[in-house]
Amino acid sequence: MISIAILGAGNVASHLYKAFSKSDTVDVKQWYNRSYDAIKSFKNETEVIDDLAKLKEVDVYILAVSDDALEEFSKTLPFNNRFIVHTSGTVSMYALDKKNKRGVFYPLQSFSKDANVNFENVPFCIETEEKSKMQMLKDLANALGSKYYKITTEQRKTLHVAAVFINNFTNQMYRIAHEISDAENIEFDLLKPLILETANKVQDMSPYMAQTGPAKRNDKKTLKKHLKRIENEEHKEIYKLITKSIQKTHGIKYRFDIKRKKH
Amino acid sequence: MISIAILGAGNVASHLYKAFSKSDTVDVKQWYNRSYDAIKSFKNETEVIDDLAKLKEVDVYILAVSDDALEEFSKTLPFNNRFIVHTSGTVSMYALDKKNKRGVFYPLQSFSKDANVNFENVPFCIETEEKSKMQMLKDLANALGSKYYKITTEQRKTLHVAAVFINNFTNQMYRIAHEISDAENIEFDLLKPLILETANKVQDMSPYMAQTGPAKRNDKKTLKKHLKRIENEEHKEIYKLITKSIQKTHGIKYRFDIKRKKH
Ligand SMILES: NC(=O)c1ccc[n+]([C@@H]2O[C@H](COP(=O)([O-])OP(=O)(O)OC[C@H]3O[C@@H](n4cnc5c(N)ncnc54)[C@H](OP(=O)(O)O)[C@@H]3O)[C@@H](O)[C@H]2O)c1
Ligand SMILES: NC(=O)c1ccc[n+]([C@@H]2O[C@H](COP(=O)([O-])OP(=O)(O)OC[C@H]3O[C@@H](n4cnc5c(N)ncnc54)[C@H](OP(=O)(O)O)[C@@H]3O)[C@@H](O)[C@H]2O)c1
Repeated sequence: MISIAILGAGNVASHLYKAFSKSDTVDVKQWYNRSYDAIKSFKNETEVIDDLAKLKEVDVYILAVSDDALEEFSKTLPFNNRFIVHTSGTVSMYALDKKNKRGVFYPLQSFSKDANVNFENVPFCIETEEKSKMQMLKDLANALGSKYYKITTEQRKTLHVAAVFINNFTNQMYRIAHEISDAENIEFDLLKPLILETANKVQDMSPYMAQTGPAKRNDKKTLKKHLKRIENEEHKEIYKLITKSIQKTHGIKYRFDIKRKKH
Repeated sequence: MISIAILGAGNVASHLYKAFSKSDTVDVKQWYNRSYDAIKSFKNETEVIDDLAKLKEVDVYILAVSDDALEEFSKTLPFNNRFIVHTSGTVSMYALDKKNKRGVFYPLQSFSKDANVNFENVPFCIETEEKSKMQMLKDLANALGSKYYKITTEQRKTLHVAAVFINNFTNQMYRIAHEISDAENIEFDLLKPLILETANKVQDMSPYMAQTGPAKRNDKKTLKKHLKRIENEEHKEIYKLITKSIQKTHGIKYRFDIKRKKH
């Protein structure tokens, strides 16, 4: 049995609390938050506290507090040499005060308070200062039914960039498609199955192998027709640049002629 | 009961045949293909033919043959004034020979021969020359459990552009993320749940509402850090352009400074 304390009561802390409470291999000994109100309704399930001095000794302290607060908050912990982890994708492990043994237990998923979370689909990036602590984080991930990946602080930074492409930039592709279809009174609903299909396809196939379409086929006639049809200058520019990128990826010699306005 | 004939035996024709055969409201009277080999194994289920002269009168003839062949092929049909539809996303309804009544029954999904198709998730774009024929296509879609959308030939062309953003360009975002993570020995598997999450989110929320991240937050520190971390010049350029696009969409005044190399 691994004993843990959860610190913080935001999106991540709340979901972790709920999931760990159900586990047979993890005991949530205490739940701390600076404002008691957020956690008091759980007082019959676990020990809820708003005073750091009351923290008992446990195997892992999970600091699920805001990124900006992590560094200072870790200094205020009234103990040494215990194992503390944060749950942030962007904060370095070394931002935590070195008086304790440090680690990262970062769930790569966006959480909101209402939506239910199925942790089986949430991969954890784990990192520890001391190698011997790694198994503890693996066990925590297993207790949630989650996959885990050993990821260094440096790798985590790169991962964040990759996630921007996959989440924010992909979402902007959806948005542009929405604008283009709206302008012609085409219901966006019509495109939703294609969004899912595209995402599903790369679950068992590399994006390289999954690519299709006029850029990949180097279908110049269609590329030209599409550009003519796109009215928004910025969308045109994106069309050209991503087409060029696809063609480069697939070793196509012909590069879509890009006339760029100078800024 | 609607009687139909399917013409062609490629990806689309084969899936349509299978699905319509199971329906109680549609009778696949005949299946034609120019090469008999592709369909002969179905001869105990329906009438399979390779001679257009043998085509009987049915309510709808579905021409699921290659885009390039559609125009000529429709001329060779040995009858007039019957209802014929093609299944293409890119060919105009008017490309079909006008001796017959014309329509389009276009499934917006990519098919491959082996993969099973759940037609409940396949939206159909339908169009007819004669208004009175519209109901027939609605009934066909209903027989498959599919949603349908009335879409004109012009709208279909725009839809194709939107689909490039949603399918090919999104896939290229995945590809770039793959390159970025590979370079740091990060398993791409780690990012797959995020791909699904991003696609799922816009099923009940507009892409506008779903947007998050440093561009939307105008988090200049992170934007700069990311740009420094991206080594590939082309990826940098894409990062800047899509960031700019997100900021424009969300009315953010600060525009990420774009220094563009002249080409
Ligand atoms: N949300 C996500 O999608 C997500 C995903 C992966 C990782 N993460 C990471 O998980 C961590 C928590 O994120 P979250 O989304 O759960 O945040 P959140 O919902 O905003 O909650 C923040 C929590 O931190 C506490 N807090 C803030 N400043 C504090 C301070 N100075 N001292 C003590 N406690 C403080 C807050 O306490 P009060 O209740 O008293 O305000 C609150 O309980 C962050 O590192 C974040 O990067 C978030
Ligand atoms: N595949 C998709 O993902 C998809 C999705 C939506 C719509 N569509 C559209 O559906 C239609 C069919 O596509 P598909 O993917 O099923 O194509 P496909 O798998 O390549 O099959 C093409 C079919 O057309 C026949 N054909 C080709 N040229 C012909 C000609 N000159 N005369 C008579 N028959 C000819 C072929 O006959 P043989 O067997 O004798 O070669 C074959 O049966 C196209 O309009 C396509 O744009 C396809």
